[in-house]
Amino acid sequence: MDKIKTDLLVIGGGPGGLVAASTAKSFYPDKEVTLIRKEDKAIVPCGIPYICETLGRDIESDAMPDTMLTGKGIKIILGEARSIGRESKTVATSKGDRIEYDKLVIATGSTPIVPPIQGINLENVFSVEKDAAYLSKLFKALSDVKDIVVIGGGFIGVEFADDLSKGDANVSIVEMLPRCLMAAFDEDFCARAEEELEKEGVKIYTNRIAETILGDEKVEYVELSNGERLKTDALVLGIGVKPNVDLAREAGLKISEKGGIWVDKYMRTEDKDIFAVGDCAESYSFFTNDPIPLRLASIASNEGRIAGANAFKLRRVNEGTIGTFSTMVGDYGFAKAGLPQKEAEELGYEIVVGDAKAPDRHPATLPGTHMMKVRLTFERSTAQLIGGEVYGGGSGAGCMINTIATMIQNRMTANEIPTFQLGTHPLMTCSPANCHILNAAEGAISKF
Amino acid sequence: MDKIKTDLLVIGGGPGGLVAASTAKSFYPDKEVTLIRKEDKAIVPCGIPYICETLGRDIESDAMPDTMLTGKGIKIILGEARSIGRESKTVATSKGDRIEYDKLVIATGSTPIVPPIQGINLENVFSVEKDAAYLSKLFKALSDVKDIVVIGGGFIGVEFADDLSKGDANVSIVEMLPRCLMAAFDEDFCARAEEELEKEGVKIYTNRIAETILGDEKVEYVELSNGERLKTDALVLGIGVKPNVDLAREAGLKISEKGGIWVDKYMRTEDKDIFAVGDCAESYSFFTNDPIPLRLASIASNEGRIAGANAFKLRRVNEGTIGTFSTMVGDYGFAKAGLPQKEAEELGYEIVVGDAKAPDRHPATLPGTHMMKVRLTFERSTAQLIGGEVYGGGSGAGCMINTIATMIQNRMTANEIPTFQLGTHPLMTCSPANCHILNAAEGAISKF
Repeated sequence: MDKIKTDLLVIGGGPGGLVAASTAKSFYPDKEVTLIRKEDKAIVPCGIPYICETLGRDIESDAMPDTMLTGKGIKIILGEARSIGRESKTVATSKGDRIEYDKLVIATGSTPIVPPIQGINLENVFSVEKDAAYLSKLFKALSDVKDIVVIGGGFIGVEFADDLSKGDANVSIVEMLPRCLMAAFDEDFCARAEEELEKEGVKIYTNRIAETILGDEKVEYVELSNGERLKTDALVLGIGVKPNVDLAREAGLKISEKGGIWVDKYMRTEDKDIFAVGDCAESYSFFTNDPIPLRLASIASNEGRIAGANAFKLRRVNEGTIGTFSTMVGDYGFAKAGLPQKEAEELGYEIVVGDAKAPDRHPATLPGTHMMKVRLTFERSTAQLIGGEVYGGGSGAGCMINTIATMIQNRMTANEIPTFQLGTHPLMTCSPANCHILNAAEGAISKF
Repeated sequence: MDKIKTDLLVIGGGPGGLVAASTAKSFYPDKEVTLIRKEDKAIVPCGIPYICETLGRDIESDAMPDTMLTGKGIKIILGEARSIGRESKTVATSKGDRIEYDKLVIATGSTPIVPPIQGINLENVFSVEKDAAYLSKLFKALSDVKDIVVIGGGFIGVEFADDLSKGDANVSIVEMLPRCLMAAFDEDFCARAEEELEKEGVKIYTNRIAETILGDEKVEYVELSNGERLKTDALVLGIGVKPNVDLAREAGLKISEKGGIWVDKYMRTEDKDIFAVGDCAESYSFFTNDPIPLRLASIASNEGRIAGANAFKLRRVNEGTIGTFSTMVGDYGFAKAGLPQKEAEELGYEIVVGDAKAPDRHPATLPGTHMMKVRLTFERSTAQLIGGEVYGGGSGAGCMINTIATMIQNRMTANEIPTFQLGTHPLMTCSPANCHILNAAEGAISKF
């Protein structure tokens, strides 16, 4: 049993932990920073669906290089943190070591939700665990099957289906809501994404729940709530995650009503020497301040940058989570920041909405042109931008949402946006005379 | 001779005129809006270089559809405005008509600079006029030549060379400065662009001036300031433009010291019923308030949105030109917003700079990954962002610059940017744990 001493200990090797460690080391180069993680190799979590086909089933190719940490002088310990002794300021590990810390960051992530339905333990039924050994079983199983059913039409399910459709198997999605991606987008954007999935040959079963999984040893069928039976050789569950808070709870730290570790605006838990970031920590809305159940690598990274900077001096405040998010279906990107129209209305906002649809190249006769649509949602009384949605050709859509996110974060109003000075180029963007963001805001102005 | 009456007359069919007319019609739907232009067809100015190869020499495919105007109920008159009678509030046209206006927008654009050097009138020597008839001669001439020399390594010259290199001809650029694109970028970004041009087979002759054009009837050689002679079958001049201000000058309107029509912050000339926008109008820097010689379709469109909204009531203020700009070389986008490091220093700013270089996909093993670099330049005393430069894969770079432009416009500081909440996706952006904009700002912070 070793006794190790470090100034800052980070528990967890995902994006939140990685960024917390590396930010802390940048701000406090004299402090010793150590990261402990269970996994031999850290996997890029968002890259997992693309291992299916785009990365040729090579899990190694989806690894995060350890040099991002070791190159900065951060120590990595492989092992699992078993308990936190807050009095002694030590963490006990699965290998029986004790690590003494001055400051601690909990970044234990989340675990896929596995519903307790009949047949869930059959062979070839998988959730999406961020673990190389588990994933290697999953991708091995998927590589020689004819029919695959994905349960859950959120972004993980949709991304799995999208990438699997590039291979030979028949792919289906089962989603309980009326549309895929409905937690992120307004219905017309969801419908557009479903159209692209269907073009790729994906069969979509919405308004249905997977009730029973049937098969002998291996899965053979999944039975839906409307009685339909889908034949399948493998099942991928993508129905959400639950935060890993056991370690924090057992250490007596407060767990928030929505299930994440309670944190203040500096990302500190109730114990001022212990921070929590990423999927295991509670996030609060930029708009309402209420806890929100959004768990994304980009949010984890953001929280890691806050906790890392605050590790030994309070320097950064969490202004609340905007929820900027993007995904890809076919060669279209779908992205949103802030509140979609529907969600804003449900929260009780009086809103004004502007839509703009135009080609994403100019002239539109250029190869690679896609039709792009932008929706901007404004709060009526202040005219502040509170939400944006985009679809359009690939990385253009994925990057354009960040312009909208910046506008939201700066609380820009409908009147300010049309004269925002953007750069345009025929081969890369819309025409300056017909620009989505500007036109959507201009369209909204007339409705105030 | 007809006498026509309109509430708002716009002179010029380029992006500035088009957007001024269409914005005015949106804000004042009851007003009659008329646009007069010389050209039968309005050409997308930024698309011209791509007619060479990408658009298959088809000029028609680079047209701006008139429905962008007529669809909104804006009248188009084909003809040239010959004089403005400010007392009578009328414009006389080349067809002998008189158009009575209540408000007038001058958007007469600019004309390519043609240097008075020997041989400039030889056949196959072209400038880049935004005129379909002229361009059709140009592209006909370029279509069956072996060697083409482009004079000027600014963005028009570089874009012509880039697109011509996709065809069979040997392409060379002659540039008087030490690097191509030097007016827009710091030297390392210019060097990176030159590298891509050279990969495409473009020969680059910098630090040289084209002194004499030699040939019998047609151009055969161009002689450079260092005595070198380049054999060539055609010459394309892209050395800049001068604003078309004769109409305004003859109407007694004030011309600014830098050669554009003087305008106030509402885009009005000295005559409060006459606005000027686009290449013919003077632009003023967002940073220094000084006139700046930047002439881009995106700036023209922005000014058109201001003038159009202000046509009958003052609603919008021009905060000054940031200068957001992007171009493409090979499959890399190069883009900048605000002041590059070098220009900021020349203007007398004390600056702090942060650079970040990382792949623009995650994991970087994904197909389509390019190395991307971002530079952010901050003013030291306020820590405000005053400039950004980007290169990276195609539309990602072209769209990312608009996030940076939004940050500049909102006067965000080095401390605010690292916790900017961006969206990321494996197939569309950098990793959230290794994001260029955030890392460049984080890198700068340590130097304050």
